[in-house]
Amino acid sequence: MSSAVVADRFRELWDEIAPIGRDARTGGYLRYALTEPERRLREWFRAQADRRGMPVTDDGNGNLFARWGDPDAPGAVLTGSHFDSVPHGGAYDGPLGVVSALLAVDELRAAGVTPARPVVVAAFVEEEGARFGVPCLGSRLLTGAIPVQRAAGLRDADGVSFAEALGDRPAGARPELLAGCSAFVELHVEQGRALVDRDAPVGVATAIWPHGRWRFNVTGEGNHAGTTRMADRRDPMLTWAFTVLAANKEARLRGAHATVGRILVEPNATNAVPSRVTGWLDARAAEPGPLAELVEAVRGKATERARRDGTEVTVTEESTTPLVGFDAELGRRLAALLDAPTLPTAAGHDAGVLAGALPTAMLFVRNPTGVSHSPAESAGDDDCAAGVTALARVLEELTCR
Amino acid sequence: MSSAVVADRFRELWDEIAPIGRDARTGGYLRYALTEPERRLREWFRAQADRRGMPVTDDGNGNLFARWGDPDAPGAVLTGSHFDSVPHGGAYDGPLGVVSALLAVDELRAAGVTPARPVVVAAFVEEEGARFGVPCLGSRLLTGAIPVQRAAGLRDADGVSFAEALGDRPAGARPELLAGCSAFVELHVEQGRALVDRDAPVGVATAIWPHGRWRFNVTGEGNHAGTTRMADRRDPMLTWAFTVLAANKEARLRGAHATVGRILVEPNATNAVPSRVTGWLDARAAEPGPLAELVEAVRGKATERARRDGTEVTVTEESTTPLVGFDAELGRRLAALLDAPTLPTAAGHDAGVLAGALPTAMLFVRNPTGVSHSPAESAGDDDCAAGVTALARVLEELTCR
Repeated sequence: MSSAVVADRFRELWDEIAPIGRDARTGGYLRYALTEPERRLREWFRAQADRRGMPVTDDGNGNLFARWGDPDAPGAVLTGSHFDSVPHGGAYDGPLGVVSALLAVDELRAAGVTPARPVVVAAFVEEEGARFGVPCLGSRLLTGAIPVQRAAGLRDADGVSFAEALGDRPAGARPELLAGCSAFVELHVEQGRALVDRDAPVGVATAIWPHGRWRFNVTGEGNHAGTTRMADRRDPMLTWAFTVLAANKEARLRGAHATVGRILVEPNATNAVPSRVTGWLDARAAEPGPLAELVEAVRGKATERARRDGTEVTVTEESTTPLVGFDAELGRRLAALLDAPTLPTAAGHDAGVLAGALPTAMLFVRNPTGVSHSPAESAGDDDCAAGVTALARVLEELTCR
Repeated sequence: MSSAVVADRFRELWDEIAPIGRDARTGGYLRYALTEPERRLREWFRAQADRRGMPVTDDGNGNLFARWGDPDAPGAVLTGSHFDSVPHGGAYDGPLGVVSALLAVDELRAAGVTPARPVVVAAFVEEEGARFGVPCLGSRLLTGAIPVQRAAGLRDADGVSFAEALGDRPAGARPELLAGCSAFVELHVEQGRALVDRDAPVGVATAIWPHGRWRFNVTGEGNHAGTTRMADRRDPMLTWAFTVLAANKEARLRGAHATVGRILVEPNATNAVPSRVTGWLDARAAEPGPLAELVEAVRGKATERARRDGTEVTVTEESTTPLVGFDAELGRRLAALLDAPTLPTAAGHDAGVLAGALPTAMLFVRNPTGVSHSPAESAGDDDCAAGVTALARVLEELTCR
């Protein structure tokens, strides 16, 4: 297929899902795992697979798999990504990998390729962790990286548990499914500007920075904003504000990344000193050592400030992902095949979890602004088409050679 | 009536309303204006007035008035307070003044007092501003201190306007109602520890500090928490954290009060640099000059930091209340009558608004911890009974002499 035809086909599928879960005010997406918009995308995925004669199975954890090829053949090559978004996230993070996988199958079929090993297109559940708090929840369950009991009991902001949203207790590790696969290749929009700098539409990932989420609970004493003397206050907002600035400084000192993007204030009233502030620290670094140092430094600054403010801080590690080096041999092979640059990333992905179970690689598609997790996230149709074609070549390489 | 009888009667009425709008988790109250719990309290008020043969009128702004005495007699003495709460607020702030007013009427009747001028017990709407953002909304409307159009269009967090919640466009200023009154006396739980320090169950307020609310909108650029380089970020959370600390410092320098109790983060995702942080500054000072200086200093610090962070700050004054000196002659008269100490307060009240229209006084009831706007807010039954008796004496003084 010519790249113009691929770009047209991409646009056609893309337009079908573009309105689903889009917030008219921000232009961003509210596609939380197992909520109505994400369920509509899952139905769309089933219909697309059906149209292609690809039977769909659910692994009992909420992950969907559409298979092209002999149901019993070993060595399947797994590809795909996720549909769920962060709050008011972009259109590409996740869905691009699923849509590209479906189109890559089309491209291989149009070229008359009959793969020796099956291709399985996956749609993983709750990759962002935006609803239940643990990112890559679906792939963690599939690989046994999170206990079923813990995953089942995770609750969203309305108190609904993951098991309730799923409709059943999750199945957990499915080693037999993974044993039937020979590799996983996830295509994803780049969340930075490395490919812009290298003037390349597609790249191959080498590693994922170790990263994690830490919840800081700062407890003080709720009181009247007007009548409580400044000296009598135990204001958790002060402790938290200091911690936000400290996290930024400590990350810069180490060439690491630290972000406070989420806060919960209780009671969150204009005329009341808060009784409690809960803040989440997202921290990442190129190596585990500096990451641990960064988190300890922030914890230390928060605790020190809490003593001055008369507040109390507790820090809970909500999730951590170790340094993931993707399969070096596979990465070299794909970079050579595609003549594409290689690059590391500081973003987590299901590929980072599956890398512990299967030879895994990632393809990135150029993002002109580098912006992600925002309505401004974008990728050109031509680059998306280049991504589809690159993924088709990779799937052909891995299923036929 | 003996003080033990008054305390028993107080406890009886208090227990009737104690469960309404109480959050089982925090023990605090969610009695937002014109929501179901507050409507239940309004119905309770109507039933109590009915039981006492006091006809109830609504001023078309949501304020309720129950009258004891000749409907046409001039010079009525207005008393009462409000039912609405801050989020997870205490039981006493507001309801104590309404319940005490009803019990004071009972006490006067039991003593066989026939007042020469009527007593009107008021329940004002939206005193806290917790739902529609402007505190003392009911009394501001009644006195014409806020334009009807602006009040009608104020919206709650769900987008419901005040006019929609009220069921009609508010009536606005009712000068003829105010002309029928000779004074307003609001009884309120103290929101500080001045009465504890002075070992007195009841005090008389002299003034309310000037105060206001300023909304800070800090706009940056939403982005991925993992992949966006620290140097490339435009993170509004940093600007806001700096502003929180600056507000605290600037207030302490001036002997003023500054509080940031409410924040709205967009999109509020753990793994996204926020695109926008909206924070509310509550600022108060003993005099208007230092208050204006304080707000300007905080605005200056926020703007300066925004330049470093690549963010933008806009500051909107949401409401301000000037220095209120209560009627000096009335205050002296009541303090002498009750042999009670006098004290200023930094909390806003409907009495502060009505002071512009009527000779106004406030009675405070001792608060053992000084805590308010919190589930921990409290007052002893004996002190509440002392408040009822004090208010009865004040009403007798003002309606009979």
